[in-house]
Amino acid sequence: MTSTPPRSGLQLRSIVKRSGELELSLVDVPVPAPAADEVVIRVEASPINPSDIGLLFGAADMSTAKASGSADRPVVTATVPEKLMRAMAGRLDESMAVGNEGAGVVVAAGPSPAAQALLGRTVAAIGGAMYSQYRCVKVEQCLPLPAGTTAAEGASCFVNPLTALGMVETMRMEGHTALVHTAAASNLGQMLQKICLEDGVPLVNIVRKPEQEELLRGIGATHVCNMSLPTFMDDLTAALIDTGATLAFDAIGGGKQVGQILACMEAAANASAAEYSRYGSTVHKQVYIYGGLDRSPTELVRNFGMAWGIGGWLLTPFLGKIGLEGIVRLRSRVVAELTTTFASHYTDEVSLAGALDLDALKTYARQATGQKFLIRPTL
Amino acid sequence: MTSTPPRSGLQLRSIVKRSGELELSLVDVPVPAPAADEVVIRVEASPINPSDIGLLFGAADMSTAKASGSADRPVVTATVPEKLMRAMAGRLDESMAVGNEGAGVVVAAGPSPAAQALLGRTVAAIGGAMYSQYRCVKVEQCLPLPAGTTAAEGASCFVNPLTALGMVETMRMEGHTALVHTAAASNLGQMLQKICLEDGVPLVNIVRKPEQEELLRGIGATHVCNMSLPTFMDDLTAALIDTGATLAFDAIGGGKQVGQILACMEAAANASAAEYSRYGSTVHKQVYIYGGLDRSPTELVRNFGMAWGIGGWLLTPFLGKIGLEGIVRLRSRVVAELTTTFASHYTDEVSLAGALDLDALKTYARQATGQKFLIRPTL
Repeated sequence: MTSTPPRSGLQLRSIVKRSGELELSLVDVPVPAPAADEVVIRVEASPINPSDIGLLFGAADMSTAKASGSADRPVVTATVPEKLMRAMAGRLDESMAVGNEGAGVVVAAGPSPAAQALLGRTVAAIGGAMYSQYRCVKVEQCLPLPAGTTAAEGASCFVNPLTALGMVETMRMEGHTALVHTAAASNLGQMLQKICLEDGVPLVNIVRKPEQEELLRGIGATHVCNMSLPTFMDDLTAALIDTGATLAFDAIGGGKQVGQILACMEAAANASAAEYSRYGSTVHKQVYIYGGLDRSPTELVRNFGMAWGIGGWLLTPFLGKIGLEGIVRLRSRVVAELTTTFASHYTDEVSLAGALDLDALKTYARQATGQKFLIRPTL
Repeated sequence: MTSTPPRSGLQLRSIVKRSGELELSLVDVPVPAPAADEVVIRVEASPINPSDIGLLFGAADMSTAKASGSADRPVVTATVPEKLMRAMAGRLDESMAVGNEGAGVVVAAGPSPAAQALLGRTVAAIGGAMYSQYRCVKVEQCLPLPAGTTAAEGASCFVNPLTALGMVETMRMEGHTALVHTAAASNLGQMLQKICLEDGVPLVNIVRKPEQEELLRGIGATHVCNMSLPTFMDDLTAALIDTGATLAFDAIGGGKQVGQILACMEAAANASAAEYSRYGSTVHKQVYIYGGLDRSPTELVRNFGMAWGIGGWLLTPFLGKIGLEGIVRLRSRVVAELTTTFASHYTDEVSLAGALDLDALKTYARQATGQKFLIRPTL
C-alpha cells in the first residue's frame, strides 16, 4: 500500500560558516512533486558510511562539539581549526544535505511507466541527501529490491558493495593478481573477503586487534596481519611473498601504514630478485587511499625504490571508467548476493534527531571498525 | 691520436657490509679487451649526480664518515643506521662500481665497423661504473660528440638532459599542459626552464633562496616561488591558477612540499569550480618524486581531495615507454643543444682519490643546489 507523501519532511543539514563554525541541524523541506522520470521515496534506512562523515563534519574538530536546540530539533556546533579552513573554501555558508545512500518505499511517482512501476516498491537509492524523511530521485538512481527485502537490508546497496567490487575490478584492470586491504574487518572488508574467496583472488587483510583477526578467519580469510604486533612487518612481507600482491587499498590514510605496505611489497619483490637493482625493484607497487579513518598526515619513509605509486581512489570516477555495462553487471551481483556477500551489520539505529545526539555523534565520528550506525528517518 | 690502454686502471667501489658498515675505496681492475661491438673509453670526466649518490653511499649516515688508507688509495667508512639495513638487503657484501655517465676518448675498439668508427673520438657514455679510469662499453651506450666538444662538456649528456626532456614528454603523454618543478635552480632545473621556454610550456619553479630566484629569472623564468617565504602557499596557488599546471616533478622527496603542491593545485582547481564537490575537485593532480635530496619522510597533509597521485619517476622505465624512436629523437636534441640548453656547470673538479676526500665527500653529500662535482679519473 502506498500513501500520499506529506507536503514536507525533515532533512539533516550541515553548514560550515565563514566564521569557522560547523553547524548541524534538521530543517523542514518541501517534498517536491515528482517529474515524469522521478519517484519520491519515504526513506526508512540510511547508513552513516565513512564517506558521509566528510561532508557531515567538514574539517571540524568534533571534540569541540556542543549541543543546543530542542529534543526534536537539535543543533550541534563545532569549531573548524583555522589551518583547515582553506580546504572548506568551496562550501562556506552553504547549507548542505547529507547521506549518500539509503532505502525506503516509493510513495509517489511521476507519470512515466518506469516511475509508475516502482510505486509501492521498496527500493535502494544513491544520490545524496538521503538523511531525509522524503527524497525525490530519478528512476535510474533506484535499485528495486527483491520481494521480501527490508529497507534496512537494502540500505547499503551501493557504496560498500560497489567499492569492494571496484577494488577487485581495479586490480584486474591495472594488471595485479592479488590485493591488500587495511581496516579489513570493516563491513566493507568482510564483503571484500567474501568476494575474493568467490573469485579466487588472494587477499592480505591488515587489522589492529586479535578479535578482528578472528572475525576474518571465521569467514575464511587465509592472510590476516595484525599491525599491532611487533612481527607485523615480517608477517606482512611473508604474506606478500605468498600472494604476490602489489596493489593495496587503504581506508586509513594517515600514519605510517601506506609506506609500510610499500616497503614490505618492495622486500617481497626483492626476495625473488636475481640481482641488486640500484633503484629498487622494477615491480610497480601501488596503494590507493580510499578512506580517511585517520586524518593525521600520511608519513612515507621512502625505502621502497622508485617503482611505486600512491593515489586517491573514489567510487564515482571508477564507475565512470567501467561504464554503464560494467555498472549494470556489478549492480546485478549486489542484488543477487544482498543477504550473503553484501550483508551489512549495524550496531546502532537512530532517528534523524538521534543522529545529532552528542554521544551518538561522537561515537560514529570515531569510525571504529565494527561500529556502524543506521539512520531511520521515519522513526 | 689513440693510445693503447694499460692493462688495468683504478675504479671507485662502494660496499655495504652485513655488519652495517659502508666502505668506499679505489681498486685496480683489469681493462678488458673489447668485444666486436665494444669500445674502451679513457674516462676523462664523470659528474656526481644526485642519482649516483644512492648507490655510492647506500643508506649510510655520512656524518659518521671516517677516512683511512693512503693519499692515493683512500678508504672511507661510515655507518648504516640499523633500521635502514632492510633496504640494503639486495646489495650486502657486494662491491659495486659507481657512476652513471661520463665522457672520454675511445682508446681501443672491437673489430666491428661501428666500434672502429669510434676509435679516437670523444664520446659520452651511459651504463654505470664510469668512476673508472678505463671503461669498456657497447657501442650503443656511446654518443659521439661533435668535433671540438670536450669531455667535460659532454660528461652530463644523458641523466640530466634526458630527465628534463622526459618531464616535458611525460606531461604531454599524461595529458597535462604545464609543469611544476622543485629544487628548480639545479643544473637540471635550468635545462628544464630552457626547454619549456623553447617549447612554450608554462613552468612553475620552486626554490628556497632569493639568489636561486634571480638565477632562474635571469634565464627567462616567469614563475618562481620561494618556499622560504611566508606567502609561499598563496604565491604557488596564484602561479598554478595562471599556468593551469597539474603535474609536478619533485627532486626533494622528504618533508611537506609534495603535499603543499597538491594542496595548492587543489585550491587552484577549486578557484575556478562552479560548485562545491564533497570529495574535492575532480581534476587529477599528480606529483612525481624523481629524486631524494631530503631523505626524511614525506609528510602528506591530505587536504587535496581524492583525485591525486604521487609516484616514483625514473629515467630508465620512461625511456622504455617511449621506445627507441623516442630515445633517438631526444638524444639528437641533446647533441644539437649541448653547449646551450643542456650545458652543465661544475663548481668542483676532483680526481678519483679526491672524490673520497672527507671534505669533498661531505660537500657533495649535501647535494646543495648550485654545487656540482665533476670527477676527472685520469687526473
